[in-house]
Order: sequence, then structure tokens, then C-alpha cells
Amino acid sequence: MSALPDNFIREIEAVVGAVGMVCDAERMQSYLSDWRNAYRGEAALVVRPASTEEVAAVVRLCNQYDIALVPQGGNTGLCGGSIPDASGTQVVLSLTRMTGIREVDTENETITVEAGAILQAVQEAAAEVGRLFPLSLGAEGSCTVGGNLATNAGGTAVLRYGNMRDLTLGLEVVLPDGQIWNGLRGLRKDNTGYDLKHLFIGSEGTLGIITAAVLKLYPAVRSVTTAWVALPSAHAAVQLIGIIRSLCGDRLTGFELMSRQSVDFVLRHVGACSDPFSETHPWYVLIELSDTQPDAPLNELLEQGIGEALERGVVTDAVLASSEAQVAALWAMREGISEAQNHEGPSLKHDISVPVSCIPAFIQTTDQRLLDQFPGVRIVAYGHVGDGNLHYNVSKPVGSDDTAFKAQQDAIMHVIYEATTGFQGSISAEHGLGQAKRAAAKHYKDPLELALMRAIKTTLDPKGLMNPGKVL
Amino acid sequence: MSALPDNFIREIEAVVGAVGMVCDAERMQSYLSDWRNAYRGEAALVVRPASTEEVAAVVRLCNQYDIALVPQGGNTGLCGGSIPDASGTQVVLSLTRMTGIREVDTENETITVEAGAILQAVQEAAAEVGRLFPLSLGAEGSCTVGGNLATNAGGTAVLRYGNMRDLTLGLEVVLPDGQIWNGLRGLRKDNTGYDLKHLFIGSEGTLGIITAAVLKLYPAVRSVTTAWVALPSAHAAVQLIGIIRSLCGDRLTGFELMSRQSVDFVLRHVGACSDPFSETHPWYVLIELSDTQPDAPLNELLEQGIGEALERGVVTDAVLASSEAQVAALWAMREGISEAQNHEGPSLKHDISVPVSCIPAFIQTTDQRLLDQFPGVRIVAYGHVGDGNLHYNVSKPVGSDDTAFKAQQDAIMHVIYEATTGFQGSISAEHGLGQAKRAAAKHYKDPLELALMRAIKTTLDPKGLMNPGKVL
Repeated sequence: MSALPDNFIREIEAVVGAVGMVCDAERMQSYLSDWRNAYRGEAALVVRPASTEEVAAVVRLCNQYDIALVPQGGNTGLCGGSIPDASGTQVVLSLTRMTGIREVDTENETITVEAGAILQAVQEAAAEVGRLFPLSLGAEGSCTVGGNLATNAGGTAVLRYGNMRDLTLGLEVVLPDGQIWNGLRGLRKDNTGYDLKHLFIGSEGTLGIITAAVLKLYPAVRSVTTAWVALPSAHAAVQLIGIIRSLCGDRLTGFELMSRQSVDFVLRHVGACSDPFSETHPWYVLIELSDTQPDAPLNELLEQGIGEALERGVVTDAVLASSEAQVAALWAMREGISEAQNHEGPSLKHDISVPVSCIPAFIQTTDQRLLDQFPGVRIVAYGHVGDGNLHYNVSKPVGSDDTAFKAQQDAIMHVIYEATTGFQGSISAEHGLGQAKRAAAKHYKDPLELALMRAIKTTLDPKGLMNPGKVL
Repeated sequence: MSALPDNFIREIEAVVGAVGMVCDAERMQSYLSDWRNAYRGEAALVVRPASTEEVAAVVRLCNQYDIALVPQGGNTGLCGGSIPDASGTQVVLSLTRMTGIREVDTENETITVEAGAILQAVQEAAAEVGRLFPLSLGAEGSCTVGGNLATNAGGTAVLRYGNMRDLTLGLEVVLPDGQIWNGLRGLRKDNTGYDLKHLFIGSEGTLGIITAAVLKLYPAVRSVTTAWVALPSAHAAVQLIGIIRSLCGDRLTGFELMSRQSVDFVLRHVGACSDPFSETHPWYVLIELSDTQPDAPLNELLEQGIGEALERGVVTDAVLASSEAQVAALWAMREGISEAQNHEGPSLKHDISVPVSCIPAFIQTTDQRLLDQFPGVRIVAYGHVGDGNLHYNVSKPVGSDDTAFKAQQDAIMHVIYEATTGFQGSISAEHGLGQAKRAAAKHYKDPLELALMRAIKTTLDPKGLMNPGKVL
């Protein structure tokens, strides 16, 4: 607290009241680290405004007193983007009191929500009116829409519905000087100049604070079918998605790739998971089709596609889920990978993307380089093939020393990121940069692109008070 | 020519050769006005570079000599965005020699094309590999991809596939100082900082020159069904799209609204068009469903939806096309409106959007205000209801004086734009601003949003040499 001028604190209190401030060191703790406890910082104050006008007033005061701000949602990010630095001079601005669902417009197929609304609450509000809000990810029970927007969140439905960016029609943003930009429009077409919303989405709070958004709704899904498929190679997965997509179009809503290593870990550590096949296979895919029609013949369609793939040698074996319980069991295999990996000692996680057509070559090249340079490491590759997005993780060799493995983190990362950029890929497909990948972005991104980003940052936030030390 | 320094011309020629320059006044004509001859300017020179490197060299020279540039594609825009001003000092940079299709990647579902490629050529290249490039609009036989990107083109497939912005994964852009930004990535996920491509898309050449793009491909469509539906009101159209969308999901690929006035004009002036119904109705909708499955039961599905709508009084009458010829005849009604209107004397055209839910109130309010203030005007309202996009045009009263009517243009526009902004709409849904709507945007847009746009413009193009006098 001592880092802040008394007048500033008095003025902040005049805006948000005592209820909108957290000064007590103990109560402040949950705002100072992420859910995994991977990042930790200190703050001079946590402010919890209850409205856009309060956010604007707080930002104006910070601008006036030259105090840096760290916007924060549900604190579920994986790159430390919402955690203050160690100085203890920054103010955390938590949006978690702004949870309002301002409007549901079924005729416009939109929902207008405040930044602090929990993703799951938005999904539920959509379901109540027979609609789907499709963004879906592990943290949906505690992440906020503001955080989803700040990081352009992805997840398992991107293949069909796109990232958070694609689900957004309008934004309300408090700019670094405290002005409120009301871009909260529910328009599907608006060609009257530069598209500002896309600049703020994915900027991780470094250009302003998103306080509300107009999001797209979709028709509710009324039929689903799910299959677990064994493949001879990663290239077969790319061929298979081509076959299924051409046949099923946008009925294809899930296509998750897993290596045998990933599945092995799950079978070993996640209770109640069992291998659907008696033999082992090098690769697996979880396929989901869905339709707005009740009783749509999705099983027949999927059988047709898999049958074609079996004939062409693209698929080795397959099973269709025949009950809700089986569907849940198959998804549990996919969703258990991250947890299962933790049981095998420290692991290094990378969220990369390459063009879909390059996935097989990327895996082959990178596997080889890693195994040459770091014998015995176990590569846990899985992800959203249709998006070109791999969670390409590396577990330590069996029986090796944890500390020695962790010391290789940067060298292993370098091999992976070099390969990624070699295939014109991205070193952060869906997690953002935060503080975790800021240095890597500086190293691997095009200097001209970084210069353009810096120029925009300086233009919108000349004092550099918005989430400093993140992204750039 | 005299407006340009001799050295500049010599250096340009060293870059593009004689074949890349048009200096002759007569040959220059086609570059100085749009296809409708609605806008006309003068130019000191037309340069036609053959490669990105040549574009970059030309832009560098213009920057060095402080010469303003007007990028130009197929010249089919409706707002004069690609036409130079009257000064005769500007250089037109035509992309029409850069027509290359650099790559078709069916596994990544992408096509990489140069800015001068004709939209129809891109559609055809996609079709050749069994894919769909969905952007579709009247000018597709002569408009270029670069123009589509610069104006974030829309058209009839936006309801299902989105605008040009939504179809784009990566861009190559020559910046105002002549540097080449290689953002030509075929990635569906990339969260490594600010999204620069969305800044250039829709900026109408005022921030840089787009030279190439990576575009998304979709599975080919193998079944289509089309219906012509009569409705009691515009509100019924909004109810109907809800019913159809909920039932059919993304099979709904077309939903075009037309007022009786629009259809009357077509029946009167467009040969071979005939009313599918014996009685007249106040509103009509053309519905198209499509599917990637051959022989998909789309007729049954559409009959089910229309049946439900008939029961609820949302639809008055309906007919399903039973042959290719009938499909063509129905679309000819929709596509004939613009031409038909020209036969009724001068008409004032407006391309607006509002939230879909506001369409009925917008039409009712604006019709009333116009008829009160300008008795006898004939309102020709039609458009893409699912996008909230209306082409809300006004024809002169029967028998009235052309000149007197044209003198009311600004007053009529003001009524329409006031109503549009009252419903949080956009005064340019899909045509952009160009020079035509620059002043209107200044008047009707949020001053803060204009200030942000100007700040970005100044940052990227400090000399203001990129398409000056357009957008801002």
C-alpha cells in the first residue's frame, strides 16, 4: 500500500467504495497468483469496480498518477498475463464484480455480457433460450469472458465455430486515458473504417480494458455422435479430417489427435479409463459430429466416412460411442492427458500451431531432433488437428533427475520453436503471450511485426501503463 | 505527367519497366473512373507492378518523393475508393498484373492468391480441387481479391460464411514506407500479439497495400434447395429466419428479403420474370439451403420449416423451386432489383445495417419519416436479413422532376442515416466509405472512434500518402 500516494487511494475509494478495494495482504493473495501457482507477483492495491463508469474513473486516476494497471479476470490463464510484476507498485484491476448479462437478443442471435461474466454462465444463458454459445474450454467454470477476449481464447470448438475473436461482434473498452469506447454493436456487417475491436481482442489488456462484449449465438445442437479411431500415422489424421470434412461439412465439430504416448499416460494414471481397442496403435483421433436436427443420421454418416478411410488404409480401427457414458469415457481420455502427464514428473508444455498440412512433417522433424539431442524424453503430442494446433509437450526420461531435466527447458523449447517457425507456425496458438512467452515472441517473431505492434502500443498507451511487461 | 519529377519517373521505370507504366492519357482513362462512371479523377501516372517487390519499390519511391498513391483493383467499388482525386498529382497503383494463385493447399484448406486475382478465378481454382471459396457478389467476374480485402467485401454468402475478413487467414502487405510485412500465414490459431491483418482488411488502402492473402476453403456444396416465400410483414421475416435457422443450422445459406415495391419494379422491367403467386403480398423472402451431402433431404427440411411458419401465421404462401431453371428465375428476381430501379428514374441508394431484431422497427420508422417529409417517394427495401443488411433505396415519386428529386438527396440520406444510427446501425454495411461516405462517416460515427482511427493512420502513414481523401 505504501507505494501509492494517499490522495490516489482516497480518490479510488471515492469511486469504488471500500467494497471495491482489497488492501489487506491476506485477502489480496488470490489476486497475486494464477490458479496453477505458476506465476506470482505483488500489488499495491486490488481494485474491483462494479461498472464501466467505475473502471473508466479508476483508469483515469491511474493515468493521472502514472500508476500501472493489470487487468484481471478469472486468473485461469496459462501465461501469467493477469499477474502483476514483483515490484508491488502495480494496481490489479479485477473485473470479477462486473458479471452482468446485459441483453439476450434471440432475433439478432446475440448476447451482450460484461467482462467479468463466467464463461459457463454465458453458455447457460444461451442454453436457456435454446441457443448455443460455442466457446468451450477446460476452465469454463471459472474463466471470464473478459479474459477470453483478452487472450482470444480457443478450446475444442474452434474447428467449427472459431476462436473468441470470431464469436465477437462488438466491444466496450476503457482506453488507457480513461475514455470509454462504445463499440458495443450487434452488427454482422459494418464497413465504416478500421476494425478496432480486433485490435483489442487478443491484446491481453495492453491497449485498454474490455468491459463488455456483444457475442454471437448459434442454434442449439440436438444430435451428437462420437467416435474413437486408431490411425497408422499423424499424416493419416490429416487425410482423415479431409475425408470427414468433405462428407460432413460443418457437422464436424470435434477432431482431437492423440499420440500413443499421450494415451498410455492416461491409461496409466486416470482412473476408469480403458483402451477401446485390444491392440495398440501409434495415433488416435476423437471425432465428434453434431447437428441442429434431432435424430440426424450422424452415425450412418460417420460410418460412411470411416468406412472410406478404412478402405484407403487411413484408419486402422474405429469404435462409435453407443451411450452417453461411452461418449463421456472417450472425452475423459482426451481431457485426462494434461493431468496424467503430471504424474510422470515435470513436463514442458508448448502450445504451437502450424498449417494443418504441415502437422505430420512438423511432428516427424521435431520428434527426431528432440530424441537426438535429449535421448529418452517422452513426447506427448495431442491437440486440435483441424486448427493446426498441437499441445506438443515433453516429459522427462524415465528415472531421470527432475532438476537436470528442468535445466534443459530452454534448449528443448528452442528446438520446438525453431521447428515451428520453420513451418511458418505460431509459438502460441491459443494461450497468448502474457509474461511467459514475451521473450520468445521477441526472438521468434518477425521484427517488422513487432515494430508495428510497438508503434500501435505507443499510440494508444503512450505512458505504457496498461499491463506493462506483458506481450511486448 | 508534368506533375511528377523526371527523376521519379525514371526510377519508377527502372523498377517496373515500360510495360508497367501507363502514361498515355487515352490508355489511362479506364483507371480514372469506376465501372459505373460515378466517380472520376485525374492521375499523374498509372503504375502496374508485376510483383510484391516491385510494389514495395514503387511505394518506397513515392514515400521518398512525397507522392500520393491510390491502390486500385478491378475498379468495381461503389464508393470511389480506388479513384484518384481531381488534382492530377496522384499515382494510381494498379494491382491487376499480380493475378497469381501462389498455392492451393487442400490439406490446410487454404488458397494463397495475389491481390490482382479476379474473385471468379479464385472460386474456380477452389472448385477445381473440390472446394468452395464462398465469397460471392455481383462483380465477381471483374473485382479483385485485393479490392475485396480492402473493402471487406460482403455479398450473398455472408449469412453462412462471413465477410471477406472472416475468410482470410493471412496477408502480405506493403507498408507506407515500402517495407513488406509478410503475414502470409495459413494458421487458424495464432495468439502472439496484436492481430495486424484485421487492421489492413477494410482499410481501403489507407494503411498499406495488400499484395497477397491466404484464404480459407470450404467443402464443396452438393445439394441445394431454393424457395420463394410470401410474408405479411418485415417482422415475419425476422421470425422466419429464426425458425429456419434453429431447424436447419448452417444449411441456411441464403435469406434475401424484398419488399413488394422491389418485386413490382422487377416484374415491370426485367424480362422473363413472373410473379410466382397469383396474389400480391407486402414482403417476400428467397431462401436457400445447401449441404455438403449429395441428395440431402433439404426439400423436406425446408417444407417442415415453412409448414411451421405457415401455422404460426409468419408465412402467407410459399413455393419450392423444382428445377434449375426455377432456381435461376427466383434469383433473377432478387438480382434484378438494382437494374429495375434504374428504369424508374433516379434513385438514391443506401447500404445500411442494423441488428437483425431492429429491422422491422427500422423499416417502419424510416418509411414513415420519409413518406411524411417526401410524399410520394417509392422505397425499395431489400437485402440480406440474416446480416441485418438492407439496401434501403429511394426512387423518385411517379411523374416528378428528376432534378428536384436529386436536390433532396442529402435530406433523404440524413433521414435514413439518422434512423440507422438511432438503431445502433452502420451507414455502410458492405460497400466501405471510399470518398462517397467519408463526410457522412465523420458526421455519424462516434468522434472517439474517428480519433482512434486517425491516430492509427498517422502512426502507420505519417506522411498521409496512402489513398488520401478516402475513409478519413
